[in-house]
Amino acid sequence: MAKNTNIRISLPAVCFVWQIAMIILFGVFIRYDEESDTHWIEHRRKKNISTNLENDFYYRYPSFQDVHVMIFVGFGFLMTFLKRYSFGGVGFNFLIAAFGIQWALLMQGWFHHLDEHDWKIKIGVENLINADFCVASCLIAYGACLGKVSPVQLMVLTLFGVTLFAVEEYIILELLHAKDAGGSMVIHTFGAYYGLTISWVLYRPLLSQSKHLQGSVYHSDVFAMIGTLFLWMYWPSFNSAIADHGDGQHRAVINTYLALASSVLTTFAISSISQNNGKLDMVHIQNATLAGGVAMGTASEFMITPYGSLIVGFCSGIVSTFGYLFLTPFMEKTLKIQDTCGIHNLHAMPGVIGGIVGAITAASASESVYGQEGLINTFDFKDAVANRTVNIQGGYQAAALFVAIAFGLVGGALVGGILKLPIWGDPADVNCFDDDVYWEVIVFFFFLNELHGTDMV
Amino acid sequence: MAKNTNIRISLPAVCFVWQIAMIILFGVFIRYDEESDTHWIEHRRKKNISTNLENDFYYRYPSFQDVHVMIFVGFGFLMTFLKRYSFGGVGFNFLIAAFGIQWALLMQGWFHHLDEHDWKIKIGVENLINADFCVASCLIAYGACLGKVSPVQLMVLTLFGVTLFAVEEYIILELLHAKDAGGSMVIHTFGAYYGLTISWVLYRPLLSQSKHLQGSVYHSDVFAMIGTLFLWMYWPSFNSAIADHGDGQHRAVINTYLALASSVLTTFAISSISQNNGKLDMVHIQNATLAGGVAMGTASEFMITPYGSLIVGFCSGIVSTFGYLFLTPFMEKTLKIQDTCGIHNLHAMPGVIGGIVGAITAASASESVYGQEGLINTFDFKDAVANRTVNIQGGYQAAALFVAIAFGLVGGALVGGILKLPIWGDPADVNCFDDDVYWEVIVFFFFLNELHGTDMV
Amino acid sequence: MAKNTNIRISLPAVCFVWQIAMIILFGVFIRYDEESDTHWIEHRRKKNISTNLENDFYYRYPSFQDVHVMIFVGFGFLMTFLKRYSFGGVGFNFLIAAFGIQWALLMQGWFHHLDEHDWKIKIGVENLINADFCVASCLIAYGACLGKVSPVQLMVLTLFGVTLFAVEEYIILELLHAKDAGGSMVIHTFGAYYGLTISWVLYRPLLSQSKHLQGSVYHSDVFAMIGTLFLWMYWPSFNSAIADHGDGQHRAVINTYLALASSVLTTFAISSISQNNGKLDMVHIQNATLAGGVAMGTASEFMITPYGSLIVGFCSGIVSTFGYLFLTPFMEKTLKIQDTCGIHNLHAMPGVIGGIVGAITAASASESVYGQEGLINTFDFKDAVANRTVNIQGGYQAAALFVAIAFGLVGGALVGGILKLPIWGDPADVNCFDDDVYWEVIVFFFFLNELHGTDMV
Repeated sequence: MAKNTNIRISLPAVCFVWQIAMIILFGVFIRYDEESDTHWIEHRRKKNISTNLENDFYYRYPSFQDVHVMIFVGFGFLMTFLKRYSFGGVGFNFLIAAFGIQWALLMQGWFHHLDEHDWKIKIGVENLINADFCVASCLIAYGACLGKVSPVQLMVLTLFGVTLFAVEEYIILELLHAKDAGGSMVIHTFGAYYGLTISWVLYRPLLSQSKHLQGSVYHSDVFAMIGTLFLWMYWPSFNSAIADHGDGQHRAVINTYLALASSVLTTFAISSISQNNGKLDMVHIQNATLAGGVAMGTASEFMITPYGSLIVGFCSGIVSTFGYLFLTPFMEKTLKIQDTCGIHNLHAMPGVIGGIVGAITAASASESVYGQEGLINTFDFKDAVANRTVNIQGGYQAAALFVAIAFGLVGGALVGGILKLPIWGDPADVNCFDDDVYWEVIVFFFFLNELHGTDMV
Repeated sequence: MAKNTNIRISLPAVCFVWQIAMIILFGVFIRYDEESDTHWIEHRRKKNISTNLENDFYYRYPSFQDVHVMIFVGFGFLMTFLKRYSFGGVGFNFLIAAFGIQWALLMQGWFHHLDEHDWKIKIGVENLINADFCVASCLIAYGACLGKVSPVQLMVLTLFGVTLFAVEEYIILELLHAKDAGGSMVIHTFGAYYGLTISWVLYRPLLSQSKHLQGSVYHSDVFAMIGTLFLWMYWPSFNSAIADHGDGQHRAVINTYLALASSVLTTFAISSISQNNGKLDMVHIQNATLAGGVAMGTASEFMITPYGSLIVGFCSGIVSTFGYLFLTPFMEKTLKIQDTCGIHNLHAMPGVIGGIVGAITAASASESVYGQEGLINTFDFKDAVANRTVNIQGGYQAAALFVAIAFGLVGGALVGGILKLPIWGDPADVNCFDDDVYWEVIVFFFFLNELHGTDMV
Repeated sequence: MAKNTNIRISLPAVCFVWQIAMIILFGVFIRYDEESDTHWIEHRRKKNISTNLENDFYYRYPSFQDVHVMIFVGFGFLMTFLKRYSFGGVGFNFLIAAFGIQWALLMQGWFHHLDEHDWKIKIGVENLINADFCVASCLIAYGACLGKVSPVQLMVLTLFGVTLFAVEEYIILELLHAKDAGGSMVIHTFGAYYGLTISWVLYRPLLSQSKHLQGSVYHSDVFAMIGTLFLWMYWPSFNSAIADHGDGQHRAVINTYLALASSVLTTFAISSISQNNGKLDMVHIQNATLAGGVAMGTASEFMITPYGSLIVGFCSGIVSTFGYLFLTPFMEKTLKIQDTCGIHNLHAMPGVIGGIVGAITAASASESVYGQEGLINTFDFKDAVANRTVNIQGGYQAAALFVAIAFGLVGGALVGGILKLPIWGDPADVNCFDDDVYWEVIVFFFFLNELHGTDMV
């Protein structure tokens, strides 16, 4: 049955309406914070800040730019691996990230940064990083739906995804006072279950009609490696971008660097052992090598020790590769969850591992290892939680993991229901994974196919 | 009529003569500044600088590297979109940028940084950033000529382009005392009109003979997205790289980030609404999404407010996309301007918008918003212009825009005349957009074309 | 004769054994240093450090990330130029770099950073940079062997390469007290001769059987330009990453930036002059343009002057391009050294030039140019070498160059002998440069070849 994929009205309408809404809401709510305002010079004098370098900009801007590259080039190019959906992979990633960061500045601002005096949100570089983080969860969710949804659906997915994220993040970081610097729980676990549940609701029984396009070609796999490598290289910046100044950022980088290195080796090992002749599978190399970064998200700031980081990467690389080998086919057949990019293997499972590792590491923290001040600083045991012990902190970390999963599952079910409405211009089962539906594309490849009577291009 | 495209003498001659000239002129004029000289330790003691971190290197180096990536990967890969001119796009971009930055260090040094005592130019990281900026204007101009000129012509275009830039920049920044941190006027407006005028002088009435090569293929469009995204992601660094330490850099990043996000949404909207079925056009996505960054160049340091930035991006995305839809064909047919990359849409119009926005924002600045010190700092109202009012500043900003346009038009006409001489080895109309003219290339694609009797590769 | 390329047991075994060994050794030896440990706050108080910014993290992290990109994307994508070995190029580069950085942290730690009190190695961001540097030498060696070895061989090559590097580096930097901030000798000269000697030992007389795959196609050359440009752009960070705080890093960036720019022009010149019609060769542009960065490695911190840097780049670009034109074919025919990527031209010769330039520049240093304190700081003339003169320093620099070459030649011969054992699963001569041996690949291209009876794909 042919579907109407004409989005000539709906996509421009959504883009215009939402962008205009952003302008109005920004006009009402968003202002520069004291470090990005021209009054900074007065602020410096008042607070006795000796140098411009103490502006948070200089602590965090390099990390911000790395995170920014991960969001747009990392996620974007990782999703170019399909032979005929590279435009949609990198292009729609671009669209929804650009929208999402605006909406995230508002949503996160209302929950975390609303000035009680003038009801304004004052933004600086840390808000930009957090907005990029928030959007990452929606891009993860996109990974499960890649090739099967319209850009209008993606805009809806992002609108609700950012909204849910902000609430979930508020509960986890502010109410539970859990730590999650690199977002194993807040970003990866939530984003993955959000996307998987949506994909489950939108299950396509006849997706095999597009089977000939659901794969890569030689060059598209090389494009995807651009995404993989920029994610892999900059992940230490991701996990340290909003960590504490000084040792916090420094330690988060070391831990993440090591966990990532370790998961590369176990990914290659499992990928090779699983195939005849030990041939490696590019899907594994593109994805499971990143599992160490995901799994180190929560504990990156903690004194998990360098060898602890290696162990985390070791395990998550194995789990993730096994996921691609066995779980993805199982989920598609038995659970009716079609997960194009395998986000369950790259984000859900390593995210959950990261949450558990964080809870255990927090619960086993001690003054002898952290130092008295170090322990307080690392876990922010002050004000309302000044008397919290590490054991209780471990419990709250575990609770946070369940909150993230619950928000993903329930939110995904609700948003999936909305996206199931027959008004969003999504493709028919036979037209999935095909850029020709939403993009003007050159027809060479199809021509070649006809000529050769083959679809191996 | 066949043309002689043999550059075996001319290209090496130009490269050697100009590089040797650079070595001699650097030997006479260029020295390290006090922050990159081994006497820094004495300088620190004399000026009572407490830490090495106060070396400008630590304020600006991360931004410099981002700008550097924009120049070489951003511009370079954006110009790989043509199906058979990717080598020329990224390769000649590399050549002229590498030459241009050397010449720019000298030209900008003579105009801005010549030490009156010893007649030396003292360089540091800010000079490197400015050299990259200067070269950007020539790379923009290259965009209009892409595929139609020889590398020798490009070297000439760059030699004169950098020279004109340095004079124009001196007039705008020093004489008019206009502000233009991200170069909406100085870089984009000048560069675009310089290139468009050259392209107009070099008009090729029979260019349609190369029509079969003037387009993209699937993979070349993905390559171009690498350029687009690195430009888009790092544009906040471009507009803040030489902004004031502290709040100046911080605010420029926020404004640019927001303007860029906004222009992505309006670009997708207009691209979709303009086509049957709402299909998106990769040319728009690759280019018009960047218009917000161009248009935020002048006002990036100002208190334009976050929602003001969104509005600037909103409008420039629309204007730029409409340019690709209607103006480029109109200019080619009626004005005889062949603009391969559509730089009129991406740089000229958004650049002019940026200049106007800058003038208006400056004219409407006030002490109540900026604070007394903030106003002085932001507009550098001191020394010769200590008594300048914001209204007058607005007037000078507007004058600066006209200077940039005038330099582009007059300079482009002169340089275009030089490039029209039949000695530079440019390709015949039938050989444009073809790497085979200047590069050793593998002949597979042509072979395939013959076999299939088609040129759709 | 068919060879057994089945690595289903050996590759996973090597990966697991070595990764588990890393975990154990890290557990025994590696700890956070005082700047990445939670006791940093106490350390700050004790040392009277006024701000978190004085944490070395903020001096070096941006440079570290640039170096990290060079290692994984720079080297990785530079090696994607072969038409059918892009997976192996970028993928195996990923594997051995991820292993090598772990082993390097240990080896370099034992030699340079072993705490005498508790026999632990305390790591921070500078160790991560040095680990990346160390791995670079093995990736250079991989360049000579690209397409002709198995991943298991590469793991062995890296294990021994890192080990040799750490010893050689210890001798050069600690015993000889030579300076080599960007590693012209320690990294490039050693790595290149190590790889070339291995390639000589593994000489394949019938390699011409794979001749049809030993070349690029249009798209693979564009992919390789990604590698080239990221190496080129970030090389200033490479040569400055571990330079002295303040003017040292600042000057190293300027010198490298200029040398690189200069070698681009001479590369284009020689490439053009060497061909009929002056057509450019992508192999030269992808490689020889980087020679200036290699050759500036040793002297980057010195007061070589800006025009001195231009001269270094000028010469090394010429030498490197001539190497590709004449030396590589000569070495293959006469010396029986098959050098896939031409590392002799990009790393060995420019590395040696860099070592010589460093020795001369050091020997001609003077208090009048450097200042008294500047001279001491730049060459670290204190403690055991407090009385060393610049002439003697020049002699030690020259000695260091010979140490690097000797370690490369002897180490390469030994490791080559080990890799010659018939147990590592390397491909037969007829199967070189072919991803199909170690990767699951889509068979489209081969299909097309058969259909067309050609191998020009």
